[in-house]
Order: sequence, then structure tokens, then C-alpha cells
Amino acid sequence: MKLLEERIRKDGRIYPGNILKVDGFLNHQIDVTLMDKIGEAFYEKYKDRGITKVLTIEASGIAIAYAAARCFGVPLLFAKKSQSLNLGSDLYIAKVHSFTYKKDYQVILSKRYLTPDDRVLIVDDFLATGNAMLGLTDLCKMAGASVEGIGICIEKAFQSGGRELREMGFSVTSLAIIDHMTDDGEIVFCSEKDE
Amino acid sequence: MKLLEERIRKDGRIYPGNILKVDGFLNHQIDVTLMDKIGEAFYEKYKDRGITKVLTIEASGIAIAYAAARCFGVPLLFAKKSQSLNLGSDLYIAKVHSFTYKKDYQVILSKRYLTPDDRVLIVDDFLATGNAMLGLTDLCKMAGASVEGIGICIEKAFQSGGRELREMGFSVTSLAIIDHMTDDGEIVFCSEKDE
Repeated sequence: MKLLEERIRKDGRIYPGNILKVDGFLNHQIDVTLMDKIGEAFYEKYKDRGITKVLTIEASGIAIAYAAARCFGVPLLFAKKSQSLNLGSDLYIAKVHSFTYKKDYQVILSKRYLTPDDRVLIVDDFLATGNAMLGLTDLCKMAGASVEGIGICIEKAFQSGGRELREMGFSVTSLAIIDHMTDDGEIVFCSEKDE
Repeated sequence: MKLLEERIRKDGRIYPGNILKVDGFLNHQIDVTLMDKIGEAFYEKYKDRGITKVLTIEASGIAIAYAAARCFGVPLLFAKKSQSLNLGSDLYIAKVHSFTYKKDYQVILSKRYLTPDDRVLIVDDFLATGNAMLGLTDLCKMAGASVEGIGICIEKAFQSGGRELREMGFSVTSLAIIDHMTDDGEIVFCSEKDE
């Protein structure tokens, strides 16, 4: 998605350790107009898959899921990372390891909202190691729901998550795929490598 | 907002201790169509206030802020509850006491995204003690931004937050105001008390 690549290059900031900050438009302050277009891109890709629910994980996935769910005309569902007092007891729980924070956390869904009848599009802002996405696919498996696609805004192709998810048979659509970044601020997208 | 009151009565579940669960349409699974109408209601109320940004707090406020920000054509900004490794160091931080979880937490914004030029609409799903909203108004004060309004989906009028915020001079718009609930599942809205 050219529009997203251009925005990353314009407003993204690179920090040592391959950290890309896009908090000006994607995951702290959010450009709703851009996000609507991201939602439309996922809809175009998966509109024939009978999607019944858009699933993501709190917090930065929620705006993306909202934009996509609007296009599909289905509810959005977000997995929680902590067992809220108010969430009840009838839950699907999967474990996720965070490399960024070097610890395990849980992703949690109320059983009430995901069933074997559901055909799910999973979305998130970043795909790097893929662990969060694996956690969400685990939740779908527990519920007997089918994962029809995984829609990602920014994939880091130099980390293994995208490759592993595709090898497992998932349809992964990443709108901007970063081949590599340099500490002096250069970003090369996979779409540009052959140009 | 009659539509929201009807939905709360239809799909809300009441638990002892005045707990109202609306996780089927508002803050776990989210009905995007209803949320769009909620966004429109806030827009109708505050469209003449020169809103430049819609501010909320992760995670359940994000969908509401998205719907509102779409109507205003401005960015949404969500305060974080933990100091992410990637958030940087130039931050506004306010302290909030959670009665639900009986502990203090922080609400955090990057200084980059809130300035004295901003005219802010704050939104959230629930208003009870009002502490989270006070934290967000504190962040706006630190940034020198003006709080033009506070838009709430469900206010619990039997708790003091709404009254206190209004006494402080804030314009608070709550789309469904609950006068009281009973343990056997009855909900009485303030709009119905005179009927």
C-alpha cells in the first residue's frame, strides 16, 4: 500500500535495535483517514471470505480492527491482555511471549463471543516475531472458529513471524513490508527492492 | 440516546455491586454500527467547538474515540496506562486511582501530540467515579490544551464523577445515564424517571 509506505517514510522514526516508531499516525495518535483506507484494503482482500468477525488485541489493534469491521459490517472483538475483574470466568486464554518486554503475557477472550460458526479476520499494527498473532490464532482454534486471514499494517520481513505464519498455511496480508532499516534512518520496503 | 439505552437493557448484564457488563457491544465485542451512531451524537453536540483532537484512554475508549474522530475529521489520541519501551521520554504523566482495581495507575501521553493549540473532546465508555476522566483533563492542562467537552457512553449517576466534573465547569455529555440498578437486573435511566 503505497500510501502507508509513504507515510511511514515521512513520519516514522527509527531507533537503534530496529525499532520503528509510528506513534504519530498509527498507534498513539491515529490518523483516522489513513486508517479508514487501511480498513478498505483489508476488505478488498478478504471480502469474499464470509468474514463474521474482526479480531485483534488491545490496545493498538483496536483502531485498525474498527476500520476493517466497518467495511465488512461485522462486529470487532478485541482480546484482552489481563484478566479484568469484569470479564467473567468463561474464557479462552492463550499464552504469548513478548520479545519487546521479555516476558510472557496472556491473551483472553470471553467464550461468549467466538464460536465455531465464526469466520475470522485477525488484524494488528505490527508483525515481527508473530507471537501475538499466534496467540490470537490459538484463541480461534480453541473456539473452533476459522481464521480466514491475517491483516497487518507493517511487517518486518527481517523477523520470522510472517514467514512462519505463511508456512503454517495462514493467509497473511501486510500492507507495508519492511525489508530492512538502517540506524541512520533509511527504510527499504520489499516492494522497492526490484525497482 | 434512546438507541443506547435500549441496547443496554437488551444486552447488558447486571452483577452484584452495581457492575454493569456491556462487553457484548461496547468494550470487548464492539457493535461498530452502534458505535458510529455514538460518534455522530458526540459530533452533533460539539461540532461548533472547533475540536482538533479526540482524546481517550486505552483500551475500551479507543473504538468510541475512533467513531467520534471520524465525524470531526480530526486525529484520535489515546493515553497509555503503562510506560511502553517505545513511547520515548518526553511525556505528560498523570496519576489515576482505580476503585475497581483498588490501585493507582498512570495515564501517559507523548508531549509531541498535545499542544496549547489543541481543542480537545475527551471520550470514554463509562463514567463512575470520574477518576480516569480527571487524569485525562490533567494531561490536557499540562499541555495547555483546552477541554471543550467530555463525551461518555454510560454514566452511573449514583456515583459522583459526573456531578464533580460538571461542578468543575466541564461540559459532560452522557448518552445513557443510569439512575440506579437492582441486583435482580432492573436498570432505571434518568431519562425515564419523570415518565
